[in-house]
Amino acid sequence: MYLNNCWYVVAWSHEVSETTLLARRVLDKPILLYRTSNGDVVALADRCCHRHAPLSLGRREGDDIRCMYHGLRFDPTGRCVEIPGVLQVPPKVRVRSYPVFVRNRWVFVWMGDPARADETTLPNNFSCEHPDWRNLPGYLHYETPHELICDNLLDFSHLSYVHERTLGGSTEIAQSRPIVEDIPNGIRVTRHVRDVPPPPYHLTLRDLKGLRVDRWFKYDFVLPGTLLMESGSRPVGDADDDERRTVRMHSCQTLTPETASSTHYFFQQSHRADVGNESTTRALFEQLLVAFDEDKRMITAQSRNLLDSDEPMMTLWMDEALVRFRRLREKLIHDEQAQQSV
Amino acid sequence: MYLNNCWYVVAWSHEVSETTLLARRVLDKPILLYRTSNGDVVALADRCCHRHAPLSLGRREGDDIRCMYHGLRFDPTGRCVEIPGVLQVPPKVRVRSYPVFVRNRWVFVWMGDPARADETTLPNNFSCEHPDWRNLPGYLHYETPHELICDNLLDFSHLSYVHERTLGGSTEIAQSRPIVEDIPNGIRVTRHVRDVPPPPYHLTLRDLKGLRVDRWFKYDFVLPGTLLMESGSRPVGDADDDERRTVRMHSCQTLTPETASSTHYFFQQSHRADVGNESTTRALFEQLLVAFDEDKRMITAQSRNLLDSDEPMMTLWMDEALVRFRRLREKLIHDEQAQQSV
Amino acid sequence: MYLNNCWYVVAWSHEVSETTLLARRVLDKPILLYRTSNGDVVALADRCCHRHAPLSLGRREGDDIRCMYHGLRFDPTGRCVEIPGVLQVPPKVRVRSYPVFVRNRWVFVWMGDPARADETTLPNNFSCEHPDWRNLPGYLHYETPHELICDNLLDFSHLSYVHERTLGGSTEIAQSRPIVEDIPNGIRVTRHVRDVPPPPYHLTLRDLKGLRVDRWFKYDFVLPGTLLMESGSRPVGDADDDERRTVRMHSCQTLTPETASSTHYFFQQSHRADVGNESTTRALFEQLLVAFDEDKRMITAQSRNLLDSDEPMMTLWMDEALVRFRRLREKLIHDEQAQQSV
Repeated sequence: MYLNNCWYVVAWSHEVSETTLLARRVLDKPILLYRTSNGDVVALADRCCHRHAPLSLGRREGDDIRCMYHGLRFDPTGRCVEIPGVLQVPPKVRVRSYPVFVRNRWVFVWMGDPARADETTLPNNFSCEHPDWRNLPGYLHYETPHELICDNLLDFSHLSYVHERTLGGSTEIAQSRPIVEDIPNGIRVTRHVRDVPPPPYHLTLRDLKGLRVDRWFKYDFVLPGTLLMESGSRPVGDADDDERRTVRMHSCQTLTPETASSTHYFFQQSHRADVGNESTTRALFEQLLVAFDEDKRMITAQSRNLLDSDEPMMTLWMDEALVRFRRLREKLIHDEQAQQSV
Repeated sequence: MYLNNCWYVVAWSHEVSETTLLARRVLDKPILLYRTSNGDVVALADRCCHRHAPLSLGRREGDDIRCMYHGLRFDPTGRCVEIPGVLQVPPKVRVRSYPVFVRNRWVFVWMGDPARADETTLPNNFSCEHPDWRNLPGYLHYETPHELICDNLLDFSHLSYVHERTLGGSTEIAQSRPIVEDIPNGIRVTRHVRDVPPPPYHLTLRDLKGLRVDRWFKYDFVLPGTLLMESGSRPVGDADDDERRTVRMHSCQTLTPETASSTHYFFQQSHRADVGNESTTRALFEQLLVAFDEDKRMITAQSRNLLDSDEPMMTLWMDEALVRFRRLREKLIHDEQAQQSV
Repeated sequence: MYLNNCWYVVAWSHEVSETTLLARRVLDKPILLYRTSNGDVVALADRCCHRHAPLSLGRREGDDIRCMYHGLRFDPTGRCVEIPGVLQVPPKVRVRSYPVFVRNRWVFVWMGDPARADETTLPNNFSCEHPDWRNLPGYLHYETPHELICDNLLDFSHLSYVHERTLGGSTEIAQSRPIVEDIPNGIRVTRHVRDVPPPPYHLTLRDLKGLRVDRWFKYDFVLPGTLLMESGSRPVGDADDDERRTVRMHSCQTLTPETASSTHYFFQQSHRADVGNESTTRALFEQLLVAFDEDKRMITAQSRNLLDSDEPMMTLWMDEALVRFRRLREKLIHDEQAQQSV
């Protein structure tokens, strides 16, 4: 069961070009992505309505796609405009077309009722493309359900353990209690961690070696599974408006179910454009990949363990945000299903 | 559900020798094939009746097979003729033996009631072994249901697209409408395509470069899944009885379900023995393999797409032959099941 | 369905050290094994009670284990002694701990009700560690149900065929009828084979080339799946108390279900310490591995064949011991299930 009436990130915008046919599965549906000659991104069902061959094995002809099994040709709206040997194509011959929106380098598709596609519900992923911020685009494929990765992002106590030598650096993160608030469409988490060693990856941005810092993490985690986070650190005692040794980051991360048991993970973590240079950006990205592999190893092992668990997971205090988010998602899925069955 | 009371090709005859024990699965049943000292092919259940070890891991002893787990010995009829430590073997100790017929290098097994094995229903695969025709024997293993490959062979409109640069060469094939007729046990398809460029692989046989040709495909597709086809081309304007620049081919192809989701594909495409030489035969075979890989890539992708399709395939005009064949097969399977349950 | 209230071998004792966290699955349950600073072996559920991450991805801290997902710390009894950010850990926060017993280099775990763990039911695997005997420890992983390997060990008629050139050497083994007796918790099998060539691997221990020998196999096969065997050979005509050319061996082998379809196999075959030297031990071990691969190949093939057999296995005279053992195991499993449902 997925939430259908929402935007899912399906690709980084540079992955969709005029010369390639990109096949990607979202909510267990095969999708073909390509770009028309005027630069618009098209998302069609990657399955010819005739014998169900993938259109991604087809051919671009102008802005149309020719299925290369039996030659049906579809326009960017999914309408079939040619069947070999047929003079007039019946209008029912078509493939599904998905609403698409490209915002700040993320390509979103709307998987539910197209009439309800609402661009005002797109997340504010501004730092993916913003002159004040620098990053490199990241992607990981997980062989686990997306819910477990959402859980991970909703409880940063794991930074102290999973990321001991990368993003963490102190058991104080796990000791500190965040403020958890409901917001429209998600959960807001605010965590301050005071008077701790700087995490290893902040040293790439500022010369904090040997100092102690105050850290903060402020993020919204919104449906279907998007993290929008401001985080940073500042030497203990420095004034709040003293930016000279302050680390400021902004991160956008999003989880898109590929199937019930596999997930697309698109992410970036930006640093301020006025700090460091290109090699700083590259270094931070590489450190992030190391850290995200730490998560993946743990979550993949957890996922295997859950396959045959004979008892439920146990809820502890640090699970507050993830429990609230799971409840919200389940409620909305339930509502959506109820509406469909009316 | 399979059709049982019919002959299935299980091997090329050269695959079954006196010195090897060939294991092959047909209709989800393990079969052992070997040849006795007088050259007869034997097909036994590849599963000792005792502890179900494969006899193909056993040993030839004369014309018998010794199971090498606990030593039971079976004769070519499947009767157990020795149990270690037992003076008289009870007649119920035996493995199933399948009727076998070898015709023109194809080894057929009868998978249903042996009493109904009827050699008059064998297909006329003459060109597999005939002095007027030359070919090389082909085999492909498909990880798809056999039905999808039957579909493929019953609609040659795909030649224009899947085989654009090999067997096709013109969109006219897909535009042309074949005559589809019911015949006993199958479907007859006759297709003429006039005034088109010769397909690339015909150039191996005749110097048709720059010419335009008339092409024809005349085939019977008979149960359980065998194509018997006469095809060819002739320069536009040449007389019907002018053989000097005429390409004539004969092809026998057959599909044998290994399991519900995998298939054995035995095939050959012959050219006239009086045209070309051994290297022509080899060149045509290699071109055929390239073309058959084009099919396999498309059908395998289609098969994956069908696994989770939430809607049925759509029937268009070019599906007439395959729809009729599917209906015929389903009717016969239904009849067979009904008979068994009486 | 497994028998729970019994000891299963989970490791050779040298596999469990103070510096490693060994993950092993038994009866489909993930188990973590490690050794405390005083040398005791600990067996805990390899699944943190919180979010079910494996503790084997955790960290030793003293004799405790820290889960490296969110930092819960467990002592060797499975009790959680620390939750980050929590002052007092509720007693319900714990993971299951399994009773462990180490005997003669085999590490046993009790998978059922800990209150019923009874050390008097441990098998007498003395030769695994005994000054009079020499061996090397063996382990194989099978992708088959454990029942089929038990069957194999309960019918040595297979030595004549599977092990023709290794442990067998004569069809007389399969011809000879063993005495099969019920014993508490298992089956006793006694087999004498008289006046046969010595088996190839006995030549490593004694110069029996060209002689004929009498052989014997005397073993108990006890629940859950342990073979304890005395075997040997002596030249025909040598007195019963003449040890000069006598081969004497003692073997302990045990099967532990990993899952319903995979099995851990721990084994050793010892020779007398006063015969041969270290290289004799090594040579015998290598011959044993060759022979056990012969079994594995056959049993794995049998197992695949059984997956889709449409008829049951056939019981012959040589199956007496294995049929009795299967019946005993099924009765005890049934009794155990009945008790649980009361």
